[in-house]
Amino acid sequence: MDMHELTRELNIKSKAKIVMLVADGLGGLPMEPGGKTELETAKTPNLDALAKRGVQGLSIPVKPGIAPGSGPGHLGLFGYDPLKYQIGRGALEATGIGFAMQPGDVAIRCNFCTIDATGNISDRRAGRISSEESAPLAISLRQIKIPGITIFVEPVKEHRFVVVFRGPGLAGNVKDTDPQATGVPPHDPVAEDEASRKTAEVAKEFLKQAKEILKNEKKANFHTMRGFASRPDMPSYEEVYGLKAAAIAVYPMYKGLASLVGMDIVGKATTLEEQMATLKQAWDDYDFFFIHFKYTDSTGEDGNFAEKVKRTEEVDAAIPAITALGPDVLIVTGDHSTPAYMKGHSWHPVPTLLVSDCCRPDHHTSFGETTAITGGLGQFEAQYLMLLALSNAGRMGKFGA
Amino acid sequence: MDMHELTRELNIKSKAKIVMLVADGLGGLPMEPGGKTELETAKTPNLDALAKRGVQGLSIPVKPGIAPGSGPGHLGLFGYDPLKYQIGRGALEATGIGFAMQPGDVAIRCNFCTIDATGNISDRRAGRISSEESAPLAISLRQIKIPGITIFVEPVKEHRFVVVFRGPGLAGNVKDTDPQATGVPPHDPVAEDEASRKTAEVAKEFLKQAKEILKNEKKANFHTMRGFASRPDMPSYEEVYGLKAAAIAVYPMYKGLASLVGMDIVGKATTLEEQMATLKQAWDDYDFFFIHFKYTDSTGEDGNFAEKVKRTEEVDAAIPAITALGPDVLIVTGDHSTPAYMKGHSWHPVPTLLVSDCCRPDHHTSFGETTAITGGLGQFEAQYLMLLALSNAGRMGKFGA
Repeated sequence: MDMHELTRELNIKSKAKIVMLVADGLGGLPMEPGGKTELETAKTPNLDALAKRGVQGLSIPVKPGIAPGSGPGHLGLFGYDPLKYQIGRGALEATGIGFAMQPGDVAIRCNFCTIDATGNISDRRAGRISSEESAPLAISLRQIKIPGITIFVEPVKEHRFVVVFRGPGLAGNVKDTDPQATGVPPHDPVAEDEASRKTAEVAKEFLKQAKEILKNEKKANFHTMRGFASRPDMPSYEEVYGLKAAAIAVYPMYKGLASLVGMDIVGKATTLEEQMATLKQAWDDYDFFFIHFKYTDSTGEDGNFAEKVKRTEEVDAAIPAITALGPDVLIVTGDHSTPAYMKGHSWHPVPTLLVSDCCRPDHHTSFGETTAITGGLGQFEAQYLMLLALSNAGRMGKFGA
Repeated sequence: MDMHELTRELNIKSKAKIVMLVADGLGGLPMEPGGKTELETAKTPNLDALAKRGVQGLSIPVKPGIAPGSGPGHLGLFGYDPLKYQIGRGALEATGIGFAMQPGDVAIRCNFCTIDATGNISDRRAGRISSEESAPLAISLRQIKIPGITIFVEPVKEHRFVVVFRGPGLAGNVKDTDPQATGVPPHDPVAEDEASRKTAEVAKEFLKQAKEILKNEKKANFHTMRGFASRPDMPSYEEVYGLKAAAIAVYPMYKGLASLVGMDIVGKATTLEEQMATLKQAWDDYDFFFIHFKYTDSTGEDGNFAEKVKRTEEVDAAIPAITALGPDVLIVTGDHSTPAYMKGHSWHPVPTLLVSDCCRPDHHTSFGETTAITGGLGQFEAQYLMLLALSNAGRMGKFGA
């Protein structure tokens, strides 16, 4: 059963405010047997003070043993079953560059490539052409016109760009045109269901015009299309939780994910300090605040244990600015673990801390992977965290009489 | 959602090797209040050493409070939702005697019985006829011929034997012929759906010929048919996990369960020591090894606490032979608990230990029911254990971008 069937019915409007601070990739591993994790190594006096009056546990992003990408990682935290709401590749790429997809839009990841005189692909990524060279090429494709369709072309990075089709009757089940090989021509876009037939035709016409526009380009004289995807049809925070929600993020991906669930993107902060200022400014206007911090993940991806420790301490230092505002519920968590030891996202459950006046504290005095094992929240699937948030805020009524 | 939808897509081929050592019925109970369990009483220096570098937890075979049989217990460990993949009685009985069912086969548990002159059942189990007397009777039924159907008749024990029909168009939804009462005739086999009509007709013809063959037998002049069941349609380890899997088991039941999920049955070991030798011999040929040890269960069923302790120590003594091979992931678990105190399978979650270089150790220094409560794996459903195995082996990619 979808928990939103319950929250729609049971949520209660109130003045109570919820802050969810997401330190991306927060969970970690020791670098050597018997060692401490990044979070356990970091000096976190503010988090430890919260641990004393809060309750902690381990959040399983999707299911035990599943390492999620940012998409499913955040959807889980937002309370959307990440196995039910899967964001297609194209839609995630569009979201990741901050493109606001509308219902019915179809987004496509495109790669510039080179083709030879016979039309066969000679380089699937156009020699990983630089962003400086590829952006003008992508922008040149904006001259493509297809009747009844609004077309968006957005440069991404190197050989990559995104195309979004907007218009009636489009669906996203179209096969990739990238043949995953050189020496052969790209595939035509082929619809995998009746509803996507128009999308395939529009894509074919787009490719025809693109070939003409690019034909004399030396670096990239064509492109492929992959990961056709509609905007996932997701109910909003307002509708399922009765929450007016604000996202305070720096990176486009997380703004995009938040906008998919109907959060307002607030402020233009580029640092955590600026995010805290934005939080203060927006405090009276929203019920729920999602604050995203990227660098616990990126330092983990780099395999830089010491730097991840420092970035964790930066998160800790931001806590007083949040508690000063007196949130009714404060949650500190991550969308997944990114252990420096593994240099990538992992499946390990994520230390999660929840503080409210009625959270049933577990008498831990610090916050970390090891204490979280015996924390009062136990191990739980991330998709239930929003239920805990609402209840701790007094924003959920009783189920059944 | 079936986790195999994810593992099919996300599994990564590699050289990493996984060993799952299943000590059947491993979990236990103290014999008196305040006492220790069998596992906690046993001297297990090797398991304790693994605990120091591993992570432990409690595996819930099916759902909390469900005591499983060997079938669902093992299917859970193998990552097959035991509530989705139910093995019909006939199929389990055939599997249990090592009969290799093929897709489309229908297996039936049969009981020898006696009928009186009017055709009414006088003894539903033919006085629990001895195996020595019943086996020749079962074998005599192999002379039954039905056009288009290959028939297998296999003696089991005492009054029990198994019949398997092989041929096109057979399905397993046929009602039992055993009326569960004496003084009444056996039922005719009746199909419960259209697809099983042919099976019912074949069964009827089988019973007709059997009655003729057995009519002058004193001890058992007829038989009933129960638990009609098709071979469960289960995807293979290779297909869902990308794993070439070997089963190293002594008893037919466990070889049978492993073969249902496409494992190769390797070696002819009759002792744990011989199983370890088989493991070493097969090491280069497989990715995954399921090793089954029966006697922690059978001693528990006997209510013999001391003997279960001894058998647990036998499992411990086998560990160095496994670790010497350097598996990337080593799991020690059980398919369910069999506390000597209860003399039977129970629902109690099963102490489970997982060791890999990235398992996030939980700082326990011994392995047992009590430590497992506060282990880093928490309490988890057995069906997720294979996800953890794959991820710890680096054999699972990220879910979503």
